[in-house]
Amino acid sequence: MTETKYTVNGMTCGHCAASVTEEINKIGGVSDVAVDVPTGAVTVTSDAELSESAVRAAVEEAGYELAQ
Amino acid sequence: MTETKYTVNGMTCGHCAASVTEEINKIGGVSDVAVDVPTGAVTVTSDAELSESAVRAAVEEAGYELAQ
Repeated sequence: MTETKYTVNGMTCGHCAASVTEEINKIGGVSDVAVDVPTGAVTVTSDAELSESAVRAAVEEAGYELAQ
Repeated sequence: MTETKYTVNGMTCGHCAASVTEEINKIGGVSDVAVDVPTGAVTVTSDAELSESAVRAAVEEAGYELAQ
């Protein structure tokens, strides 16, 4: 199990968190996504290390942006 | 046609607006709901005058609060 922490810009409420969680959950091997809206912290648990581009694409699909 | 303007507290994003719109649209006779997130203004178009308690209940069902 790998846990990776990302920062997502632009989330303002629980609906935003749910959208981001839903999209990241679609990435193969992801078993858990935890979002903290005020800080934008998104902690992803996965079987193996994820490609950052897959995570970035999922976040953008949800309508938000991965911070650097 | 009647157009009534309400103010809803607590909406922060388009998802919030969508939730409020969806619930108010369920009230009989409502034909249009327009939400402005920054101001919280919700303009409801309906066949006849709506009961404020029905609108209040719909807004609360969506997880927000009707101002005054």
